[in-house]
This record gives sequence, C-alpha cells and structure tokens, in this order.
Amino acid sequence: MSTRVALLCGGVGGAKLARGLHLLNVELTVIVNTGDDFEHLGFLICPDIDTVLYTLSGQASRAQGRGREDERWSFMRVLRSLGGEDWFQLGDGDLALHTYRTERSRHGARLSEITAAVCRAWQIQSTVLPMSDEPVRTMVHTDEGVLPFQRYFVAGRCEPRTQAIRFAGADTARPARGVDEAIARADVVVIAPSNPYLSIDPILSVPGIRTAVDATRAPVIAVSPLIAGKAVKGPTDKLMRELGVEASHDAIATHYAPCLDGLLIHQGDAGPRGDLPVRIGDTLMRDDEDRMRVAREVLVFGEELAR
Amino acid sequence: MSTRVALLCGGVGGAKLARGLHLLNVELTVIVNTGDDFEHLGFLICPDIDTVLYTLSGQASRAQGRGREDERWSFMRVLRSLGGEDWFQLGDGDLALHTYRTERSRHGARLSEITAAVCRAWQIQSTVLPMSDEPVRTMVHTDEGVLPFQRYFVAGRCEPRTQAIRFAGADTARPARGVDEAIARADVVVIAPSNPYLSIDPILSVPGIRTAVDATRAPVIAVSPLIAGKAVKGPTDKLMRELGVEASHDAIATHYAPCLDGLLIHQGDAGPRGDLPVRIGDTLMRDDEDRMRVAREVLVFGEELAR
Repeated sequence: MSTRVALLCGGVGGAKLARGLHLLNVELTVIVNTGDDFEHLGFLICPDIDTVLYTLSGQASRAQGRGREDERWSFMRVLRSLGGEDWFQLGDGDLALHTYRTERSRHGARLSEITAAVCRAWQIQSTVLPMSDEPVRTMVHTDEGVLPFQRYFVAGRCEPRTQAIRFAGADTARPARGVDEAIARADVVVIAPSNPYLSIDPILSVPGIRTAVDATRAPVIAVSPLIAGKAVKGPTDKLMRELGVEASHDAIATHYAPCLDGLLIHQGDAGPRGDLPVRIGDTLMRDDEDRMRVAREVLVFGEELAR
Repeated sequence: MSTRVALLCGGVGGAKLARGLHLLNVELTVIVNTGDDFEHLGFLICPDIDTVLYTLSGQASRAQGRGREDERWSFMRVLRSLGGEDWFQLGDGDLALHTYRTERSRHGARLSEITAAVCRAWQIQSTVLPMSDEPVRTMVHTDEGVLPFQRYFVAGRCEPRTQAIRFAGADTARPARGVDEAIARADVVVIAPSNPYLSIDPILSVPGIRTAVDATRAPVIAVSPLIAGKAVKGPTDKLMRELGVEASHDAIATHYAPCLDGLLIHQGDAGPRGDLPVRIGDTLMRDDEDRMRVAREVLVFGEELAR
C-alpha cells in the first residue's frame, strides 16, 4: 500500500513539492491555502489552488512557477486599452479556469467540488482540496494600513512593512470535506516549503485543521522554505525580519513548534537549536528530478520518525 | 454643418454601413439592436454593440466582420479542456470587452454609459447607443420550440424553422437616453442593411423608438439587406421564406412600409412594386471604399427625399 501523505501547501514552492510527491505515486492529498483568494473583475481567483492544479497537471509556467506555460496576454492588452484595472495579470488561458470556477460557484457549487472537477478534467490523480469551502481572507496589517493579500502581494509588491497578519473568517471556517479525514488517515503530514506566515498559517488558522494536525499520531514534517537565510521565491525572509524574527531554520522550527516532529533543511545551513529531529538535504527544486528528490527525503524522514 | 444621421443598426452588415458613414464624418448616432444580448458564463455579451464598436474603431476581423482581427483562442482551448460550455466562441481579446462591461454593469452602470466609455477609450467619435438600457430579448419561435436568439443563431446555426419572432421586454422598454433625441434631430434616419426581422424589428419594437421614427419629418431610408434575393451574410432570406414572405426588395419595402420614405437597392435587382422612391446602387460592402460609397448613396438619397 502506498504511503498516505497530507500536504499543507501554498503556491509556487508548495506546488513543487506537491508535484514531487505526486510523481512518486504516493496517496497524496494536497490541502491548499485559500487565504489569497479574491474577487477581481467579477472572477473568483484562487491563486494557490491554480498554481497547484497547473503544476500537478504539468501546465505551469516553467519560468514563473505560477500561471500557464506559453501563456498569452491579449486579454490584458485589450483590457488596458479600455482603461480597465490591470494591476493583476490574467493570462488568456488562465481566464478559462477563473471563468469556469466563478460560473460554477455562482450556481452554488462548493470550491472543493469545483476543484475536484478540474482534477478529473485534467486527469490529476492526487486529491486537491481547498483548506475550506468558506471564505478565509488573509489581511496584511502594514505601515500603509490593512491590505487584502493581493493588494499587498501583487499591487504593493510586498513593499509595505508588515506589522501583523490576520485571517478574516478563519475563526468560523470549517475544513473542506475530506481535509480532516486526510490528515487523520495520513502516514505523514507535510508542511510544504511555503511562506509560513502567508501560506501555511492561514491553513492552520482553521480550527478544525489545527485540531486534526495536533491530534494525528503520524509525524508532522516541515520542509523549510529558506536556503541560506533567504526564500527561494517570495517575501518570507523580508517578512520574518519585519515581524522581528530572524530569517533562520530555528525561527521556522519555533514557529511550527506546537505541532512539529521534524524539519528538513538545506545542506550547509545552520539547523535549529534544541532537540527537534532535523534532516539535511538539497531542498532547491528546479525541475521534476529535484522535486522527486525532496519528496523522497520527506518520505524517508517520515518513516524514520514514525518508528 | 455636417449632416445628422440616425442609423438603426444590427451586427455585421449594419456595422459596415455605420463605418462608411463614420468615415464620411457625418454627425452619426448608431442605435444598436440589443435583442441578441445574453448572459453566458457570467458575461453580459452584446454581440451587435461589440461588432459596431470593433468595426468603427477599425479592430473588427476583416474576414468575419464580427469579433477582433488577429483574435486568439487560448481561452476556448482551456475552457474545452475543463469541459466548459463551448458552443459560443469567445476570443481572448474579446473577453476583455465582455469582462469590462459585465463588471461595470454589476456595479450599476447602464449599458449606454458603458458603451460611451468604450467609445471614449477607443476614440470613436460617432455616438453608439444601445436601443435601450433595459433588457429586450429576441425569442425565436421555431419548430423545435422557443429559442433565445443565440441558441437559435449560434448553437442552432439558424437551422430550426422559424414560425414567429418575439421581443421579450420590448413593451415596457424605454429608449436609451439620447436615442429619441438623435432620431428627432436627424436630417435622415437610416435603416441599415441588417436582418429586418432579427436586427431591426427589435429596435422598432421599443415603443418610444417606433414613435420617434414615425414622428420624424426627416426622410427614413432603408438599405435593403438583399442582393439578388440573398442576404450577404446571415439567415435573412431563409427566414423570410420560412415566414411566408418572398425574399425580395418588395417584401423589405412592405415590411418597413409604415415608416419608410425610400429604399436603396442593389443594381440589377427588381425593385419593389408601388410608388416608393427607390435608389439603385452597388450595395455590396467589402472594404472601407465600398462602405463610404454606400454611405454617400444614402446621404444623397436623403437629400433628394428631403427636398
């Protein structure tokens, strides 16, 4: 029987590990952050789910890690000529996914149902679940005021100085159907090398998910998103410094401490203080070979910790 | 002072004459059929307004007469891969216009305001007005049941046999702001060579427009959509036969009789019976030269009739 893995996952970095596990044919459930989701130009956009769907189905942009490979931009060009809002890039092909989801959602389908339908259409064998079917919205409290995530991340280019991060709606959100079962049944629960504050915390802020992760007897392993004190992509290290935390594996370990059983870190980096089990490997994921290598490290680590 | 022209207009054929008049720098108001408008995949789509906007701004597909030149189809390809509804073709660039309109409409803007904003953005000097800001929907009664226009026209390829045509909502619809003024102030009112039953009748079915056309002292001229008993594009002649009418200029003249002062027909064709003033010219419009030529014929005819 193949290993059952529950992966808590954000966008680009998380999707890469998801792809690695997916290619190893484990029984994978990807539980995806929806705190970044937003309504824009009438579309319901779920950036992290999209990135996971494109990555697992082999359609993601190789250069960007998000969006579609060979994407085109006629829509944005014409929208700009009309004076429409152009701060968020919407690719021509990508728009079909937003349109499909928005239309089904408007007719009453849950986000988890829609995501499952996309997986079927694109023959993605792994299970992809939004963390919740109820809206949770990441709000970034900055020196320029409280910004919805995409306003901070895309329009603001992560430039405003962050003071705190809140997840509106999390208190009352329930895990999407299948999420807590996947965690309860997993042989290993993996926290992807996503941004802990912006991508993983929203998932763990859903009370039912937190409870399930705390309750599982399976090892909970995080892959640190830092390499040599920097994030491979995105603002993790900048954000950590702004929140008064050192950008280190130690800080990552401390952040996840209440539920963490082990941390996978990049070779040559200083590990966390204390006695948390640590595994060392090459955590940089440039291609599918790399992704499978990191996925294997995670599985071996999980088996060791389960003993 | 330039001639004031009010043009009642459908899609492709009407847009061509609109373009001809537009290029002659007359003071042009295009009053466009909205009976074809529909909601699809969450977008408010106004096919005839779009065709007029693309044609007047020089962006229309030269081969099709509708849609955008150099359009691309990534959206449709991805939508199809998702199992989405693909019976209506939505081009990548075209989607920006639908998105822009739908979003503004959802925020309370009237169709006429949105259309005016597009004209400003695309520097279209002529005035383009929807016949009404209130929904009027063309319903085609066929041997396969009552079909909303696009289901008949696109999905059904005009194949179902037509028994009658109704305009839902027309009874209570008011002309969009500016429509009756444009008709009242016009030196000539022109009925474009559009489908009389599917494109012009919906406009005239709005009581305030009918009244304005009946009341004007300016000549009302129609350009017949037939050449040698056939429509240049679309199902006009097929439809006329199904409705028990001969596909002839005589039938066109009879159809518009209550308000018509003159009919422009193609050279070599048999004219209508009776004493309606007729002008004969080359009404085929392949390029802008042709369009200006037909527009000139219309203006000269109008001046003659006004004497």
